[in-house]
Amino acid sequence: MLPTIAWRGRSVLMIDQRKLPGQETYVRCRTYIQVAQAIEKMVIRGAPAIGIAAAYGLVLGVMSLSADTGRSIDRDFERIYVRLERTRPTARNLFWALERMRAAFERNRGQGLRGLRAALLEEAKAIELEDAETNKAIGRHGRALIRDGMTVLTHCNAGALATAAYGTALGIIRAAVEEGKTVRVFADETRPFLQGARLTVWELDKDGIPVVLITDGMAGWFMRRGEVDAVLVGADRIAANGDTANKIGTYALAVLAKENGVPFYVAAPTNTIDFALADGGGIPIEERNPDEVREIGGRLVTLPYAEVRNPAFDVTPAAYITAIVTERGIHRPPYETSLKSPD
Amino acid sequence: MLPTIAWRGRSVLMIDQRKLPGQETYVRCRTYIQVAQAIEKMVIRGAPAIGIAAAYGLVLGVMSLSADTGRSIDRDFERIYVRLERTRPTARNLFWALERMRAAFERNRGQGLRGLRAALLEEAKAIELEDAETNKAIGRHGRALIRDGMTVLTHCNAGALATAAYGTALGIIRAAVEEGKTVRVFADETRPFLQGARLTVWELDKDGIPVVLITDGMAGWFMRRGEVDAVLVGADRIAANGDTANKIGTYALAVLAKENGVPFYVAAPTNTIDFALADGGGIPIEERNPDEVREIGGRLVTLPYAEVRNPAFDVTPAAYITAIVTERGIHRPPYETSLKSPD
Repeated sequence: MLPTIAWRGRSVLMIDQRKLPGQETYVRCRTYIQVAQAIEKMVIRGAPAIGIAAAYGLVLGVMSLSADTGRSIDRDFERIYVRLERTRPTARNLFWALERMRAAFERNRGQGLRGLRAALLEEAKAIELEDAETNKAIGRHGRALIRDGMTVLTHCNAGALATAAYGTALGIIRAAVEEGKTVRVFADETRPFLQGARLTVWELDKDGIPVVLITDGMAGWFMRRGEVDAVLVGADRIAANGDTANKIGTYALAVLAKENGVPFYVAAPTNTIDFALADGGGIPIEERNPDEVREIGGRLVTLPYAEVRNPAFDVTPAAYITAIVTERGIHRPPYETSLKSPD
Repeated sequence: MLPTIAWRGRSVLMIDQRKLPGQETYVRCRTYIQVAQAIEKMVIRGAPAIGIAAAYGLVLGVMSLSADTGRSIDRDFERIYVRLERTRPTARNLFWALERMRAAFERNRGQGLRGLRAALLEEAKAIELEDAETNKAIGRHGRALIRDGMTVLTHCNAGALATAAYGTALGIIRAAVEEGKTVRVFADETRPFLQGARLTVWELDKDGIPVVLITDGMAGWFMRRGEVDAVLVGADRIAANGDTANKIGTYALAVLAKENGVPFYVAAPTNTIDFALADGGGIPIEERNPDEVREIGGRLVTLPYAEVRNPAFDVTPAAYITAIVTERGIHRPPYETSLKSPD
């Protein structure tokens, strides 16, 4: 498996997720501006992965500074920080990673530029490494929810490509397969960006896990027909009460799952949880470029001037969520208490 | 407005719905085989429209016969009939139109080939003309359901392009607009064939009716946010109890509408109703070519060998349907009785 993101000699390498699965090419970012643009343009996407990218972006930004002239480095750090922070508003992990990098900056502020750079690089690498370990732990806990022979529906891509490695929702499926269970996956194509068709199918195919591609409108019908045993998705931000922002279309799946008696599971690292938000009403929902809906792969599918709405995320109320899996365990309702201490 | 389908001097002209809205081109069918293929390849689609196409296809088939040699014309008629009947399995209107043509054939069987041809052409033209009138009546009844200022969500294309003219679901919207109401439409793009993005947006734009394009996964979220006042769709086959087969994704919309207290309406001519089926369990669901999901506009969006499911329709149980509008009026539950006699 090729890595999603890697630090390589004063630059960040990312697999270009806009071009998969047709082309496996890499984008090399040498400046924090390039990293910010890569996040905005979705060269890299997935809540944990953009957190890691932003952390490395901060390292590149600080590396570009020429000298520590006292007050100026604080201003420079702030400028870099704000640029990276303004890339995408919804995923909690981006802000979590930047805040962690700021704490490292403040701890090592007095060490001079060379020492500071080394400390920040170390912190970014730790964020990357810990994310991979976190996903393994999510898998170990979550695999208990997957019975042998299950068909699991997933949406978007909550796999290795959305994280440092292994994945959150797909990490649970990988862990279940690794302990010998047979699991079949239905992957929603996930318009407009087609993360399901392009990324989830590609990832699972590489691992030899059987995957069936369907359009987003089909998911409910397969639930109704009894062909789906569980729905399993990732998350971009989870409020303290369990309300969960995730890729647009997730809310619809949760309603359809409840209506058909299918369990609905969310998998995410705890750094996705925003304890400052009492519920999902306060989660900012990114509205992206209308051309993402008007076009598919650069090809127009409607009138060029068609009016479009393009929210990139929706919020699934906690009442529809059977369980949330983090690296700490399986959290059941009521989430206000269980997110602080799982079973 | 260009016609969807028209008889033009021993041939049938159809606007090529695969190429809209980028190109407005016509396909001319001179044989019944060409008509059958046009239906299969979705040059023409929409339950009422394929019924009209099949009727004209039968006319072309009978016109190609060279002489009435007694028993052979029955065999020839049967061969033509069966070829047209086997094009698409789900929509009731196709079979209804063919059965009506068969009745005309039997009534005029004794008139010799020339008289028979004239009678069949007259019958096919009557089917086309009546469909346009039926849609106007659906609009007159259904507009009572649309309040001034409403935002109506629709799926697929149940417009002029799906019928002889005016449309069923879009006919109701047109009728509401014609009586001075302001109506805004949310159009689901409707993967895989993109009837919403390509056809509904194009049709409503031509009429100056405001339309907003969204992806299929967004519809539930806009209902949850209170931005949708009603859902209004067409139908391909309605069972005697009101269970309704329509374009894949319709079932999900109906569940989401119910969950959010949004009325869910179906609009269709009575020839869509299959009184021989007690419920929707017996409706045959067409599964189409997997490449429709793997590709968009001929462009691959996943692995070329990705496993795919591609049901073209789903069945919405009557319990989710607030009302069914036909040319006879507004039918409310219980549909077992009301479909026979509306309010």
